[in-house]
Amino acid sequence: VNDCVVGIDLGGTKIMGAVVDPQGHIRHRVFKLTAAQEGPKAVLDRMAEAACEAVRGAGLKLNDILAVGIGSPGPLDPDAGVVVFSPNLPGWDHVRMKDHIQEATGRPVFMDNDCNVATLAEHALGVGRGISDLIGLFLGTGIGGGVIIANRLHRGFSKQGGELGHVVVDVNGPKCGCGQRGCVEALASRQVICRRIVEAVRQGRRSVVTETDPKKMRTSLLAQALAQNDDLVREVMTEAMEYLGVAVASIAHVVSPEMVILGGGILEALTDEMLGVVEDSARKRALPLVMDHVKFVRSQLGEDAGVLGAAVLARQALACSLSP
Amino acid sequence: VNDCVVGIDLGGTKIMGAVVDPQGHIRHRVFKLTAAQEGPKAVLDRMAEAACEAVRGAGLKLNDILAVGIGSPGPLDPDAGVVVFSPNLPGWDHVRMKDHIQEATGRPVFMDNDCNVATLAEHALGVGRGISDLIGLFLGTGIGGGVIIANRLHRGFSKQGGELGHVVVDVNGPKCGCGQRGCVEALASRQVICRRIVEAVRQGRRSVVTETDPKKMRTSLLAQALAQNDDLVREVMTEAMEYLGVAVASIAHVVSPEMVILGGGILEALTDEMLGVVEDSARKRALPLVMDHVKFVRSQLGEDAGVLGAAVLARQALACSLSP
Repeated sequence: VNDCVVGIDLGGTKIMGAVVDPQGHIRHRVFKLTAAQEGPKAVLDRMAEAACEAVRGAGLKLNDILAVGIGSPGPLDPDAGVVVFSPNLPGWDHVRMKDHIQEATGRPVFMDNDCNVATLAEHALGVGRGISDLIGLFLGTGIGGGVIIANRLHRGFSKQGGELGHVVVDVNGPKCGCGQRGCVEALASRQVICRRIVEAVRQGRRSVVTETDPKKMRTSLLAQALAQNDDLVREVMTEAMEYLGVAVASIAHVVSPEMVILGGGILEALTDEMLGVVEDSARKRALPLVMDHVKFVRSQLGEDAGVLGAAVLARQALACSLSP
Repeated sequence: VNDCVVGIDLGGTKIMGAVVDPQGHIRHRVFKLTAAQEGPKAVLDRMAEAACEAVRGAGLKLNDILAVGIGSPGPLDPDAGVVVFSPNLPGWDHVRMKDHIQEATGRPVFMDNDCNVATLAEHALGVGRGISDLIGLFLGTGIGGGVIIANRLHRGFSKQGGELGHVVVDVNGPKCGCGQRGCVEALASRQVICRRIVEAVRQGRRSVVTETDPKKMRTSLLAQALAQNDDLVREVMTEAMEYLGVAVASIAHVVSPEMVILGGGILEALTDEMLGVVEDSARKRALPLVMDHVKFVRSQLGEDAGVLGAAVLARQALACSLSP
């Protein structure tokens, strides 16, 4: 059993480490709190601990592990293994994650941003199996994405390809966290949806939603409101999903995927109806030849997508570095 | 000298046929009028004639030619060799171009849309040599594009990838020829620029431009007006190039090219100043990590880009079909 790899998924609130076998099955998983306020060093130490504990929990030793893969918030430089900065990790500035984890584990380490590895996971082990060209779009605090072209994760010249949240939908639209205007992230992220609902309720709109802090609004609440035919939540969600569809149309005119995978924190509220809104909007906005046979699906791997994708990344990188 | 291929460039007004050697040099070129109003059959016959005359003009026989490549207006199915329809070729409906030219010449025929082959040409023989990831954007009546990823033309699942003119810039923007709203084609094509200038003059704006028919306005006129510091032309061109920059930013967030090549009918009016407007707008709208080191350049091959790209296409396709 020395053919396993470790996947580490670094999130804004928790760290997950897992031992993953060649079939993509998780042998053992470990959770830790991120506690980002303690600074990069403490977080990196906990990531290494999560890896080591997962290995022990699987009845293995570090030397049995082929490699470690990491999915981290970005932007980051996957080759140098450096997290440039991150909105969700305050104070992180050019953090040498790869070196640190490599030293702590003694194993080769490969890393990429969280949405890229989640897309890799869905392509290799999830709903995108057998599809050579696809995109993943993950709606949470922001919107992240990944692009698979000819069965490979596409990074492009800057290694930052697949930053799909910053595809512009409305040149005159609202400010985005990136400093620009009208990016799809500023129009359709989970955070934007929650904020709009709270604002509308504050202004007197009727809704089953009573939460007044958008950051505390759980996705299950959105899902319940939709199930209860709440007009406000349906209206806000529908508008956001229409914008998302416009972004999908633009993306499709560039890379022409066969499948569009939607996931992230919004997943639970992504009902059939809402998935249909994205799909209809994209079809309406795109040349029929480009969009006619594109499949719109939900991500399948849920909260395991990060560690599984990190494991896939490590395995692929290892295969490349071993090939002549 | 039996290592030459023939390139055919089908345009809305003229057909160009050329014999191209392995170094990408044109041995002989032939022009014919398209006269699209005579219908597909007559046009296809003239394309075959242009090919045959170019071969004779180069002192060769058809049997000396390895293959024929075609760049055609689209949308089209490159594998089936069928032009689905074309705004510039009235009455064309699923025209079997490949079969026709193959029969007429007795040589293997490969085809793709005009902007894809122009991008191929710039990548293989023009300003994009040695650049593995780039995009081409060609501004004429509409806006077409091409995407090179990892040194290969990217077509994607629908084979219609690189339809960059229909990347959305303004979800509430003006109607586009494709039926949708706010595509970059509806905001920045040569046709849109000329129409806006004519309308503004009609409404009393001062300008050196006196032409009242946008379709008759030559690009040289735009270039002259810019050189004479014409406020109206500068204003309209600047706005269009800013929109183009926003589209470039969106495209870069998807595929992250190293180079952006701009060309098409607008080329002559694409002064350093206007190229700078596109570049500034794209940088302003994109994550610095994605856009910082991207080169913005003009296409280099001019009116030869079509036949040269068609020749490159044919040569690459032949190499693929011969490889194991």
